[in-house]
Amino acid sequence: MLIVQKYGGTSVGSLERIENVAKRVAKARDEGNDLVVVVSAMSGETNKLIDYAHHFSKTPSKREMDMLLSSGERVTASLLAIALEEMGYPAIAMTGRQAGIRTDDTHTYARIESIDTEPIRRQLEKGRIVIVAGFQGINEQGEVTTLGRGGSDLSAVALAGALHADACEIYSDVDGVYTTDPRIEPRARKLDRISYEEMLELSSLGAKVLQNRSVELAKKMGVKIIAKSSFSDGPGTIITEENEQMEEVLVSGIALDKNQARVSLRDVVDRPGIAAEIFQRLADEQVNVDMIIQNASREGTTNLGFTVPQSELERAKEALEGFSGDYGEVDYDENVCKVSIVGVGMKSHSGIAAKAFSTMAANNINIEMISTSEIKVSMVIDEKYGELAVRVLHEAYELDK
Amino acid sequence: MLIVQKYGGTSVGSLERIENVAKRVAKARDEGNDLVVVVSAMSGETNKLIDYAHHFSKTPSKREMDMLLSSGERVTASLLAIALEEMGYPAIAMTGRQAGIRTDDTHTYARIESIDTEPIRRQLEKGRIVIVAGFQGINEQGEVTTLGRGGSDLSAVALAGALHADACEIYSDVDGVYTTDPRIEPRARKLDRISYEEMLELSSLGAKVLQNRSVELAKKMGVKIIAKSSFSDGPGTIITEENEQMEEVLVSGIALDKNQARVSLRDVVDRPGIAAEIFQRLADEQVNVDMIIQNASREGTTNLGFTVPQSELERAKEALEGFSGDYGEVDYDENVCKVSIVGVGMKSHSGIAAKAFSTMAANNINIEMISTSEIKVSMVIDEKYGELAVRVLHEAYELDK
Repeated sequence: MLIVQKYGGTSVGSLERIENVAKRVAKARDEGNDLVVVVSAMSGETNKLIDYAHHFSKTPSKREMDMLLSSGERVTASLLAIALEEMGYPAIAMTGRQAGIRTDDTHTYARIESIDTEPIRRQLEKGRIVIVAGFQGINEQGEVTTLGRGGSDLSAVALAGALHADACEIYSDVDGVYTTDPRIEPRARKLDRISYEEMLELSSLGAKVLQNRSVELAKKMGVKIIAKSSFSDGPGTIITEENEQMEEVLVSGIALDKNQARVSLRDVVDRPGIAAEIFQRLADEQVNVDMIIQNASREGTTNLGFTVPQSELERAKEALEGFSGDYGEVDYDENVCKVSIVGVGMKSHSGIAAKAFSTMAANNINIEMISTSEIKVSMVIDEKYGELAVRVLHEAYELDK
Repeated sequence: MLIVQKYGGTSVGSLERIENVAKRVAKARDEGNDLVVVVSAMSGETNKLIDYAHHFSKTPSKREMDMLLSSGERVTASLLAIALEEMGYPAIAMTGRQAGIRTDDTHTYARIESIDTEPIRRQLEKGRIVIVAGFQGINEQGEVTTLGRGGSDLSAVALAGALHADACEIYSDVDGVYTTDPRIEPRARKLDRISYEEMLELSSLGAKVLQNRSVELAKKMGVKIIAKSSFSDGPGTIITEENEQMEEVLVSGIALDKNQARVSLRDVVDRPGIAAEIFQRLADEQVNVDMIIQNASREGTTNLGFTVPQSELERAKEALEGFSGDYGEVDYDENVCKVSIVGVGMKSHSGIAAKAFSTMAANNINIEMISTSEIKVSMVIDEKYGELAVRVLHEAYELDK
């Protein structure tokens, strides 16, 4: 089998941990696999370099930032190769450029455009373990680019796709994807499998195992991801296409997002384009609007509600001042949170949302806003009931079983 | 004028010092110069990375070491570019690869084979200050190579030569080349000018301003080097072709090398090829022999003396055991040092060596070995007289005037 493994910053956060990673890689090699290993910078290194740059400038050139930040992954890659060689495993470290990763020109947030897999294949044929510095590539002009935070996941998934690898193992300090945050609900259970779509919903809702961009890319390229811990030996969670077996499970997980603020505009003048204008103005102020709900109200007016990240509420208020004649009252609430149930089973089963609402009612939790998608039901509630809601929903859907 | 500046590890050893370097570069720019600035890694960084590698292996792959160690200079280069941009000076950081530096395949000690100056010239034409990560290049296969310790000096000199720069300014924490080590002789005087040849002799004798490889390359390419301090504003020392003015100066400097051990073989059988055999054997054991002196002795035998670095004396002893039948006695002395007077004026003036010997005699310092070249007189003496010898010679040649 050809396996792409990716080890994050915490997994390579010290020399001892790099040694531990080398042992894991060696074990996978002993099991007869061809291996491409993508590594992040040692934890703390990237932030240190960012601090250095900010010592000189609040807005450093993005091109220079990319040259600066790409150095951390190179260090880890060469150290891991040295460790493996010492253990008797032929290995070679490659930069993004050497691994054939070509990106567009968007410095600090580049998109991978193509991967020339020849250099890696040549090394694999020589029997070497290939270690790739994650998070980086080069653009057409040969300039170093980086892929944004969490970009090493993206490097790993893209390499797995381009190499038609049998699996892409993403190692971090958690041993998989859970039905909910175990710090909130100790009975949270690790999932064996989850679909890309569910993972996308869960990660956008605060589960931090994998970045959305990586899951989206994996879905697009059909890459099977296995989320594992580099500190233990569990089987992890497989993130893959949804299948029939999954659809029998009604709900896969419960997510809680406490970084929410609610904005409600009452009696908005109901003229064509007013909503578009409001949200364009919010976008111009770089406010990320999450849930949007519009209800018909009195004749000629409507009520418009939406949520934004708490840190962006002030900017949202400023943006809305420009429309002060177009609505009646505005009401802000920072003390809200969003609790969501996610599961591909919702597609084929009815009554799932109803169970959520009745569970909330039975626990006297008032629902302020509701938003649903094919595989998700999200509810905005008073922040203080967030953890309680997670626990009662977890129990209602029997997720601990 | 087109000036290449090079700042060493101490000069860029902290964020404050990088800021100081940015100000110096900006000042040179304000004076109307085009600038290419070569930087080393922040002091301590390279040693830290070497320690990391040695954590995993005593003999790490040289290819991996090059990828590892080349990262430090990239960090400094991008930080300096960011600092300059913030001050309003357009700047761009380049890796060795981007700066067109092509080397041979000798990882960790590569030789520069060619420099494609086009990428740098294009940036200079755009009015940018070009910052180059020193110490590194790529080989024909696109692998990262490094040039060995002090390699950033080499990068700077090679770039200055290839770009036909008007000068190559090498900044460090000392403000030039001195007539001798000021810690030994406080009256040591900074030289305004010195020839490549004298600099080569002095640096091989322990003056650490510039590496020999860089001086040799500068001589070959006709690059005028100016050794300056990045912490003060003095004019530094110009290292250039010797000229008539220099030849009027009898002696330019006095060097002391305490890392010497003397080996004397007495009554060596005088058969053809015996010396060649002995020194080949020493070379095989990687003993660097410095001075070699052979005197005729009794009929049919000869006395052979040489010096080696103290740390290599044990290896030298082992190598000599193979010849135990071919000489009478062997005598080792670790308590010796070498004091040398250097000056191009010796070529055209006689009596300079005689003055050295009489000065030593007048101070009751016994000379154990003597070796001379066109521009140098070296004497091996008892180690305890080393500093005294430097001071009395410094005075005898009136170097403080």
